[in-house]
Amino acid sequence: MREKELEFEAVQENAWERRPEFFALNPAGEVPVLLEPDGTVISGGYAIMEYLEEAYRDNNKRYIGSSISERAEVRRIIDWFDRKFDAEVTQLILFEKVFKRLMRCGEPQSDAIRAGKKNILSHLDYIGFLTAESHYLVGEAMTLADIAASAHLSALDYLGDVPWEHNANAKEWYALMKSRPSIRAVLIDRVPSFRPPKHYEDPDF
Amino acid sequence: MREKELEFEAVQENAWERRPEFFALNPAGEVPVLLEPDGTVISGGYAIMEYLEEAYRDNNKRYIGSSISERAEVRRIIDWFDRKFDAEVTQLILFEKVFKRLMRCGEPQSDAIRAGKKNILSHLDYIGFLTAESHYLVGEAMTLADIAASAHLSALDYLGDVPWEHNANAKEWYALMKSRPSIRAVLIDRVPSFRPPKHYEDPDF
Repeated sequence: MREKELEFEAVQENAWERRPEFFALNPAGEVPVLLEPDGTVISGGYAIMEYLEEAYRDNNKRYIGSSISERAEVRRIIDWFDRKFDAEVTQLILFEKVFKRLMRCGEPQSDAIRAGKKNILSHLDYIGFLTAESHYLVGEAMTLADIAASAHLSALDYLGDVPWEHNANAKEWYALMKSRPSIRAVLIDRVPSFRPPKHYEDPDF
Repeated sequence: MREKELEFEAVQENAWERRPEFFALNPAGEVPVLLEPDGTVISGGYAIMEYLEEAYRDNNKRYIGSSISERAEVRRIIDWFDRKFDAEVTQLILFEKVFKRLMRCGEPQSDAIRAGKKNILSHLDYIGFLTAESHYLVGEAMTLADIAASAHLSALDYLGDVPWEHNANAKEWYALMKSRPSIRAVLIDRVPSFRPPKHYEDPDF
């Protein structure tokens, strides 16, 4: 939404508290949920991304690819990060280290964290492969694929759990993402009682 | 694709065998993958569904909703079934009962199957709620939301694990889906060494 220069207010929802008012908006009880001024409610990352591309297409800022096959590739990569990377890395590290503490549901499992840290390496190599001959994950323009990947990686980087030295291309791509004003605005956000490493905000890390 | 009257050949891929030739098509090593005659490769349900709607739009058979807000609702429901229902029901029952045997990776966990059978009840109620005042999950026309839901439910129904008597509206909706030629073609398919219950193919079940 920042890339599209759409004004919005971010509201924190602790979905695990299962507030009835929140379930009334989204019966799945999950974030993200988008509320439009006219009362329209759009639930879930998939529906929200496609909605924003369809509803705000006239401002010449499109992020889902310009041809049919490019859009298919953007969607393949979004799915890679929001489903595959999420299951193989994010859930194993972020859930164990952060959400368990926030939700007060037990101690982090070190074997899960170890598996996540091992799994992230091949994903960094895949990013490196995709960006070896282009600036972004799908061609020369930034797309929702880059945003989906950066969302996962910035959350893990906040915990110091992305070994950037593992792949130089991947690191260069993320430096490019960090230099975008839309991403910089995300990087100043903080989670109470968790402090990110020094390099977290720095585009020249 | 049958609803759009597109000709295709279905090819079985046992993704767990991790064939290098299949990874060359889809680096995620997962089904579904769509191969076009011109060599275009589209990977993953999300990319394939959107691709088919974009590439074959001129034949007046569209299944993703006619307005922006209807499309957002169709995508919300697709996500509900392909992510939430999948994790809460399909993975617990189908993975334990069928895939473990096909993949030869251990015995079914009865507590997982029990949890899946409990979880399916609220999903049947949700289908019943959505179809209480319309024929399909999103309005009066069949969409990809109905197809996604039917894909999960037909796989579970094959195992006799859908208690249709739990919700009359849900049962009525599924009877409507079963009467469509595109779904009937799916229901004649068989998995070797698993036999479906008598009502499986019957639209008047």
